[in-house]
Amino acid sequence: MRYEELTELARQLRVDSVRAADAAGSGHPTSSMSAADLAAVLLAHHLRYDFSDPGNPANDRLIFSKGHASPLLYSLYKAAGAVDDEELLTFRKRDSRLEGHPTPLLPWVDVATGSLGQGLPVGVGMALAGKYLDRVPNRIWVLSGDSEMAEGSVWEAVEHASFEQLDNLKLIIDVNRLGQRGPTRHQHDLGAYARRLRAFGWHTVEVDGHDVEAVDKALTEAAGVDGRPTAVIAATRKGRGVAAVEDREGKHGKPLPDAEAAIEELGGPRFIRVEVEPPPAAPARHVGHVGHVGHVGHVGDSTPPALPRFEPGTEEATRTAYGRALAALGSARGDVVALDAEVGDSTRTEYFKEEHPDRYLEFYIAEQQLVAGAVGLQARGWVPYASTFAAFLTRAHDFIRMAAVSRAGINLVGSHAGIAIGEDGPSQMGLEDLAMLRSVHGSTVLYPCDANQTARLVAAMAELDGIRYLRTSRGETPVIYGPDEEFPIGGSKVLRSGDGDKATIVAAGVTVHEALRAADALAADGIPVRVVDLYSVKPVDVGTLDDAGRATGCVLTVEDHRPEGGIGDAVAEAFSDGRPAPRLARLGVHGMPASATPEEQLHAAGIDAESIAAAVKLLVEEVVAP
Amino acid sequence: MRYEELTELARQLRVDSVRAADAAGSGHPTSSMSAADLAAVLLAHHLRYDFSDPGNPANDRLIFSKGHASPLLYSLYKAAGAVDDEELLTFRKRDSRLEGHPTPLLPWVDVATGSLGQGLPVGVGMALAGKYLDRVPNRIWVLSGDSEMAEGSVWEAVEHASFEQLDNLKLIIDVNRLGQRGPTRHQHDLGAYARRLRAFGWHTVEVDGHDVEAVDKALTEAAGVDGRPTAVIAATRKGRGVAAVEDREGKHGKPLPDAEAAIEELGGPRFIRVEVEPPPAAPARHVGHVGHVGHVGHVGDSTPPALPRFEPGTEEATRTAYGRALAALGSARGDVVALDAEVGDSTRTEYFKEEHPDRYLEFYIAEQQLVAGAVGLQARGWVPYASTFAAFLTRAHDFIRMAAVSRAGINLVGSHAGIAIGEDGPSQMGLEDLAMLRSVHGSTVLYPCDANQTARLVAAMAELDGIRYLRTSRGETPVIYGPDEEFPIGGSKVLRSGDGDKATIVAAGVTVHEALRAADALAADGIPVRVVDLYSVKPVDVGTLDDAGRATGCVLTVEDHRPEGGIGDAVAEAFSDGRPAPRLARLGVHGMPASATPEEQLHAAGIDAESIAAAVKLLVEEVVAP
Repeated sequence: MRYEELTELARQLRVDSVRAADAAGSGHPTSSMSAADLAAVLLAHHLRYDFSDPGNPANDRLIFSKGHASPLLYSLYKAAGAVDDEELLTFRKRDSRLEGHPTPLLPWVDVATGSLGQGLPVGVGMALAGKYLDRVPNRIWVLSGDSEMAEGSVWEAVEHASFEQLDNLKLIIDVNRLGQRGPTRHQHDLGAYARRLRAFGWHTVEVDGHDVEAVDKALTEAAGVDGRPTAVIAATRKGRGVAAVEDREGKHGKPLPDAEAAIEELGGPRFIRVEVEPPPAAPARHVGHVGHVGHVGHVGDSTPPALPRFEPGTEEATRTAYGRALAALGSARGDVVALDAEVGDSTRTEYFKEEHPDRYLEFYIAEQQLVAGAVGLQARGWVPYASTFAAFLTRAHDFIRMAAVSRAGINLVGSHAGIAIGEDGPSQMGLEDLAMLRSVHGSTVLYPCDANQTARLVAAMAELDGIRYLRTSRGETPVIYGPDEEFPIGGSKVLRSGDGDKATIVAAGVTVHEALRAADALAADGIPVRVVDLYSVKPVDVGTLDDAGRATGCVLTVEDHRPEGGIGDAVAEAFSDGRPAPRLARLGVHGMPASATPEEQLHAAGIDAESIAAAVKLLVEEVVAP
Repeated sequence: MRYEELTELARQLRVDSVRAADAAGSGHPTSSMSAADLAAVLLAHHLRYDFSDPGNPANDRLIFSKGHASPLLYSLYKAAGAVDDEELLTFRKRDSRLEGHPTPLLPWVDVATGSLGQGLPVGVGMALAGKYLDRVPNRIWVLSGDSEMAEGSVWEAVEHASFEQLDNLKLIIDVNRLGQRGPTRHQHDLGAYARRLRAFGWHTVEVDGHDVEAVDKALTEAAGVDGRPTAVIAATRKGRGVAAVEDREGKHGKPLPDAEAAIEELGGPRFIRVEVEPPPAAPARHVGHVGHVGHVGHVGDSTPPALPRFEPGTEEATRTAYGRALAALGSARGDVVALDAEVGDSTRTEYFKEEHPDRYLEFYIAEQQLVAGAVGLQARGWVPYASTFAAFLTRAHDFIRMAAVSRAGINLVGSHAGIAIGEDGPSQMGLEDLAMLRSVHGSTVLYPCDANQTARLVAAMAELDGIRYLRTSRGETPVIYGPDEEFPIGGSKVLRSGDGDKATIVAAGVTVHEALRAADALAADGIPVRVVDLYSVKPVDVGTLDDAGRATGCVLTVEDHRPEGGIGDAVAEAFSDGRPAPRLARLGVHGMPASATPEEQLHAAGIDAESIAAAVKLLVEEVVAP
C-alpha cells in the first residue's frame, strides 16, 4: 500500500473503533485511536498471517497486550475480512465473540488480555516456542500500552527475552501519554523507555506513531533485527483525529461524546479491505526427542509413559516422584516441556532437565514469567509443566486467573506444601495454594500422599483441559499404594473402612499418614473409623464422601493448609447440594507457624495423629452425649 | 573501626553464621558469608540505629530482602549486643525468635522477608514515609541478593523509587553469582545491574564486596547521594572464606559439611562487640493536615469521622461510598494514607486525593508495589488504604500473604467485584478475591451491599489488626440502611424474618438486593423466607447463621464470586463445628462470563432474583418430598 492508503486505512480503523464503542455504549475508543496508524502499517505491510488458518504454525502471532483497545483489534479483523461490519457492531453485547477485552472465543486470539502487563510475558512464551521448539521463522508482535510498562511482569519478560536472544519478539509500545486517570510517569519521553530497554539488551526504535512512513520504516527495521528482541517506541496521541478527545484527560474508557461528529471529523466511513500476506509455506515441524510432530494441539506418536515404580513400605518424597514421573512422561511424549523458576533442585524438575535438556526452560526467579511462559507455550501446542514452591505460585495468581480466561491448558506444580516443610518458616510454606487454585475457573486440584499416586497423577494431568494443579511435599512419606493402582481424577481412596465405623477422617497429602496412624490408635481404643484419601481436591468425589457421611454420621477433614478454601471447604461444598449432610468438623493450620521440625509443626497446628484422634473422640462423644 | 577490625568483624559474622546453621542442622550459611563484609561495614560505620529503641522514628531501617541470609542478620544482632550467643544457637528451633527467615517476632525486624523481591518494594514504602510523611532524615538500607533482581516486583520498586526521588533508599546488592540451583543470569557482571539501574535513574556504585575499605567508601558515597536512590553493587563469593564451599555450586541452603574445620579456616570464634551509632535526636514528627503526631503505632488527635450519609431509598455505588468515607476518615485521622494503582477514578480513591493530596500516593499500574508500599507505610505507623480492582489484587497475592507473616495492619479495597460489572468481561471481574483474602492468616473480609454500610465499614477497618479487605461494586445499589445503623465486624443483618420461614437466603453485596426481590416474590407465592446480609464474610456470624439454620432448616448462599472459597464456603465453615447442620445449597458464578449487561450477567450466572427464587423452591420442595 502507498502511504496515503495506509493513512486512509488508519482512519478507517479509527472510524470503526468509534462506531463499535458507540454501538456498545461503552469501551475504549480513544485507546484504540492512538494505535491506529501503528496497527494499519503492521496489518498491511508486516504481519504474515493466514486468517483462514489461524493454527498455521508459520503464522506470525499478534497479541494486543493493551486488551482494552479491542475496538481497534476488531476493526483490524474487519479490514482483513475476518469479521463483517454487522458483527463489528455486536461489540460488548451478549453472545458476541467481540468481548470487551479479547478472548480466544475468536480464533485469531491466542490468549486473553485485559489484565495489563501480561501480553509481553506470554509473547515470550510463544517466542521461545517459535525459536527453540517449533523452530519456525515467525514473529511475535505484541502491542503494549505505555501505562502497563509500570508492571513488574513486563520487566521479567524484558529481561528474559534479552537473555534468550528472542529476535522473533517485536514489541510495539503505543506511548499515548495518558493512562486511565491522568498522565503516565514518563508521558511522551520516548527516551525513558528506550534507555531502560536498551540497558536490558534490547534493540529500540523511536518513532512518531502517526507518521505511517516512519512507522513502516521502524517496523521494517524491527523485523530485520537479529540476535535480540526489538521494541518500536511510538509517540502517539490518545483519541488521535478527534479534537474533542485528542490528548485530553478524562476521555479514557468511554464512547466518544458525539460519535457522528467524530466520524465526520475522521472523514467518514471507508471500506478498505487488506489482503494480509500469508506466512511462507510452513516448514516441517521440528521433531523433538521422541517426536513432537503434530500440528498445534495435536500430539504425534506419544506412547504410555514408563512411570517410575516405588516399592510399598519404602519412603519417598512426592516432589521426587513428580520429578521422576515428569522425566518419564517427557520420554513418552515429545510435546511435554518443563519450566523452572530457579528452584528445579527443590521441586525436582531437574530430573527432567537431565533427560530432556532441550525441552527444559529456566525462567530464573520470575514466577509471573514462569506461568506466562507456560500460557504462551500451550498456545503453540506444547504441554507445559511449570513448577515452583506452592507458596510462590501466589506471585503468579493473576496470570493463573487470566490463563483460565485464555482457556489455556497448563500444568502447575507447587512443592513444599504446608507447615510440614519444618524449619524454613511461614514465608516458604504453601498454606493458601489450595484456596487459590480451587477458585480458578475449570481448574483441577490434585494433592497426592505417596510416590506411586504422584506418578500416576503427573501423567493424568497431561490429558486434562484447563488449569491443573499438583501439590507436592518436601519430606519423605510412606509409599502406601502399589505402582499399578489407578487414581481417576475426581476420585478418592477409602483406606480404612468397616461396618461399625463411627466417624470418617478425610485427609490428603501428609495428613493421610497422620490419619492412618490416628485410625489405628482409635481402633485400638475401640473406635473404628473410616479414612478417605482425598487426592482429588477438585473435582471432589461426592459419591464416596456421601457414602462415608451416611455410614458414619460425621466427617472430619484434616489438612496442612489454612482452614479456608482448602479440603475442609471442598468437602463442605460436596455436602452443599441441598440434601441433609453429616456432621462436619475440620482441622487445619489456624495460627502463624514459626520454625520447628516437621513433627513439631504438625503437632503445634493440631493436625498430627494425636490431634486427629482427640478430635474424633470429641466428635464421637457428641453422637452419644446429647 | 580500622579496616583490619572490620575484616575481623566480618570473619566473626561468618563464623557465627556457620555456627548458627550448624546448630540448627539447616539454613543458609553460604548466602550469609558472601554478604558478611558488606554487613560488617554497614553495621560498624553507616547504620544509625538505637537497638534499645527500635521504634525511634529517626532510626535507619535495615531490610534483609535476602531473608534466607538470616544467620548473617542474627550474627549482626549479636555483634550489636541485641541477642546473645545462647540465643543465636536457638536458630530455627521451636519457640526461638530466630526463625529460618526473619519475622517481626524480633523487635528490630520491621517486615518479614523470605519471599524474594519484596524487600525493595517494602523499602520504597518506608522511604516514602520517611521522606514525604514523617520527614525524618533516616535511611532505608535494603540488602538484596542478585537472583532476586529477576523478580518484576524489584523493577516496579526501582522505577517508583526513582520517580519519587527517594534518596533515602540505599540498596546493597550482594552479587555472589550463584542462585539456588546454579549461576544467575548475569553472574559477576556488575555492569549488567548497573546499566539497568542507571537507565531507571538510579545512582550506582560498583565495588569488590570483600574489600572492606572499598565497601566503606561505596557506602559513604551512597549515603551522600541526593535526589535519587542509590545501589551499591558488590561482587562477592558465596561461601566466602571456606574453600570447600566458596563460589561452588550445590552449596545453597545447607550447613557447611564440616563446620568445625570451617570455623578453624575462618580463624576461629571472635568476640567483637560493635557500638552502633544511634540516630541523631529525633526531630518533631511531621504534623499532617490534622496531626499525625504520635510515635509509631500511636495516633494523635483522631476524632470520630464525619462519615457521608446516604438517604435510604436512593441509589449509590458502594465504591463511591468508599471514596467519600475514606476522604472523611482522612479528615478525622491524620495517619490515614490512600494508595492508588492508576485507577483512582474507578475505585473512587480520588475523592481522598481532592481533600488530602499530601497523603495520597500514586503507584501507577504496579499492584505489587502498591501493596508493598502499604506494608512499608504501616511499619512506620501509618494507616494505609490501598485500592485497585478486586481482580487485580490477585497480582499482589504473595505480598498480601507475606504481609500477614509481617503482622502488618493494612487495608485493601477491591472494586469492580464480580460479574455485575457487566460489559468489560472476565479479565476485569473480581471473582476469586474472596477466596484469596479469606485464606490469608488473620484477615478480615467485608463486602457491603449499600452506601451507608460501606461508610461504616471503611471507618471500622482502621481499628482492626491484620489484613482487612473491603469488596466494592461498580454499579449503583439501593440504599437500604439508615446512616446511623451499626455494622459490627463479625456481624450480619437479618433483613427478612418471620416465624414460618421455610428457608434462609444468605447474600452479600449485589446479591442482597436480588435476594430481597426473590424473598418478596416467594412471599407472594406463599413461601416466606429469611434473608441474611452477610457483610462480614470473615469473621462470619456463626450465631445468626445457626439461628437461621435451626429455624428454617435450609440455607441457600448466593454470591457474585466463584463457587469456591467465598460466601458459600464461609457459611459451610460456620456449620463445620461438629454439630448437626441445616441443609445447605449454594449459587455462584460457575461458567466463564463474557460481555453482557449487568442484569444479563446476573441472570446468565443464575444469581439473580429469579434464579434465587427457583432454587429456594427446589430446596423447600425437598423438605416435603422425600
